[in-house]
Amino acid sequence: MLSIFPNATQEQLPYDIEVLQARMSEILLTGIPELDQIITYLLAEPGKMLRPRLVYLAASLYPSDHDIVQDAAVAIELIHLASLVHDDVIDGSALRRGRDSLNSLWGSKASVLVGDYLFATAFRLINQHNIPAILETVTRTIQTMCSGEIQQLSSTFNLNLSLSDYLQRIYCKTACLFECCCRVGALASSMPSQQRDSLEKYGASLGIAYQIIDDVLDFLSTTKYLGKPAGSDLLEGNITLPVIYGLQDENCQKDLKEILNQPVNLAGQLDRVTQILQRCGAFEKSIQLADAYLADARASLKSLPEAGRRSLCSLSQALSSDYLQRMTSLSVLDGFAYQFYEPEPV
Amino acid sequence: MLSIFPNATQEQLPYDIEVLQARMSEILLTGIPELDQIITYLLAEPGKMLRPRLVYLAASLYPSDHDIVQDAAVAIELIHLASLVHDDVIDGSALRRGRDSLNSLWGSKASVLVGDYLFATAFRLINQHNIPAILETVTRTIQTMCSGEIQQLSSTFNLNLSLSDYLQRIYCKTACLFECCCRVGALASSMPSQQRDSLEKYGASLGIAYQIIDDVLDFLSTTKYLGKPAGSDLLEGNITLPVIYGLQDENCQKDLKEILNQPVNLAGQLDRVTQILQRCGAFEKSIQLADAYLADARASLKSLPEAGRRSLCSLSQALSSDYLQRMTSLSVLDGFAYQFYEPEPV
Repeated sequence: MLSIFPNATQEQLPYDIEVLQARMSEILLTGIPELDQIITYLLAEPGKMLRPRLVYLAASLYPSDHDIVQDAAVAIELIHLASLVHDDVIDGSALRRGRDSLNSLWGSKASVLVGDYLFATAFRLINQHNIPAILETVTRTIQTMCSGEIQQLSSTFNLNLSLSDYLQRIYCKTACLFECCCRVGALASSMPSQQRDSLEKYGASLGIAYQIIDDVLDFLSTTKYLGKPAGSDLLEGNITLPVIYGLQDENCQKDLKEILNQPVNLAGQLDRVTQILQRCGAFEKSIQLADAYLADARASLKSLPEAGRRSLCSLSQALSSDYLQRMTSLSVLDGFAYQFYEPEPV
Repeated sequence: MLSIFPNATQEQLPYDIEVLQARMSEILLTGIPELDQIITYLLAEPGKMLRPRLVYLAASLYPSDHDIVQDAAVAIELIHLASLVHDDVIDGSALRRGRDSLNSLWGSKASVLVGDYLFATAFRLINQHNIPAILETVTRTIQTMCSGEIQQLSSTFNLNLSLSDYLQRIYCKTACLFECCCRVGALASSMPSQQRDSLEKYGASLGIAYQIIDDVLDFLSTTKYLGKPAGSDLLEGNITLPVIYGLQDENCQKDLKEILNQPVNLAGQLDRVTQILQRCGAFEKSIQLADAYLADARASLKSLPEAGRRSLCSLSQALSSDYLQRMTSLSVLDGFAYQFYEPEPV
């Protein structure tokens, strides 16, 4: 399974992953064998747990109630899981986190229902702590995620997708949930509202960077690292940043359009697309933009208390450096000499 | 479109249907054309609005805040809509409420997302009024609905389904949401908790009766009245009450098992199944059980204030008498002479 943070060991995490896992089992398992079997499978591969980590970090800057933070982190992970389960139904994906997807094992019927069950359980858990502002944030975020994805459905293979359309789309797909994690963590603590706004900006920028990197990796990585087949985005008609840059490049756009205008033959041409994008520097440009967003994320932290700021800053640095390491280990970018911005002193 | 309450005119309803429709549009429309187009289609055929009606009736027995009741009713209707949209994806149904289903017009991807959007919007709306007990009730109910439906998936064409399995299943499928409507209406008012329990029992019994009638109509009605093809339940392997009674009957079980053990040929044999069930009185027995639940529902109302009790009682009477009328008009039960229980004086 892909980990963008291969160096993040348990010691560095702001929570005990096993405690979170246990809490998830506790609230999800029902005693109904048909459902419990699916839930147990789902929880057996915890993934990166990046969103709970953000909630914890965001809550750590000011005093907070441990139980509220834990349940908020769990609830957001459940919402993330629900959206992955439904995404796999939507995309007909057979693999998730390097294993068979729920829909390939139990069919799309059960998967739709399990997703709904996860959503309801997440809302119920948040509601138990009676902080309406947290539930408001989370429900509004899901509305944004769904409406963004519905919008995207009608723009498959849209070769005229602009950079700003793309950024708006990945905000809805990924960044708004990162932003939500930060806001929820802040709301679970006594952080003043002005600082909360800064922290939300951090989350949104981090999320944009994260999704850009994910979109680059979708071309450059392998099934083994991705946990799903490489190139799936493009095969589904999802035009991502490297392709947008490729289509902007005068030397590449003709070759690229020729291939992309015939989606039916695309599967056999994926390597060729990657070569074209490499030739015109589309991956480097994408990484530069991701890095600019990471710098933005760090800049948003300036007004926050120093202790927590440092952990949040490290998270954004880890995203850069671990990614670079991954790229190097894959050896896909021969002669790739781009230097990430040095993080500003915090 | 089927209305089990053909005589229920706007004047008799405890709310203005157009006001509820307007409120739904207000909270669902986003300005995103791709989503708004689907929402507008969805809202154009409001259905029976039975669940909002129950919320209003339940809230009418004691003083309540009009805005809270309205939004609770709207939220529950949205949850009902979300579950219908997801059900149609799950069952691959092409028709809903006599029109093309969302999935047949916009595909299952958009339908899954629209369902999620409806759920999130419903929770957000309830949360705005800050009554955690209402949100607790609603989220717990959705958990029950989903887990029940997941359980059902593994029992298709299970000819050993017992009566109590069936009742448990239709509780999860339908009755728990009726029960939830009653509890939510009660929570939105100042009703004492003991009376709230009675009202919930009324809702659960009414819901069981409603689903039994729906299951009988699935055999005896027509596409025109049902808004979907007759016999769909059995074709999907969903064993309902008439079939359970048929399988219990010594004279019918052999013929019935012969057909049901070969589901692949079932579509051409639906009329024959209906004839067999008619022969052994399975429909009459089903209706008798529905009627017993309606009597139970009315009995649960005894401790409630008289004014509101009358409307709730009328609702259960309407369910009996309008159903009988529908059966007669369909002329499917020649010589069907079953008399519904006369409602006890309220």
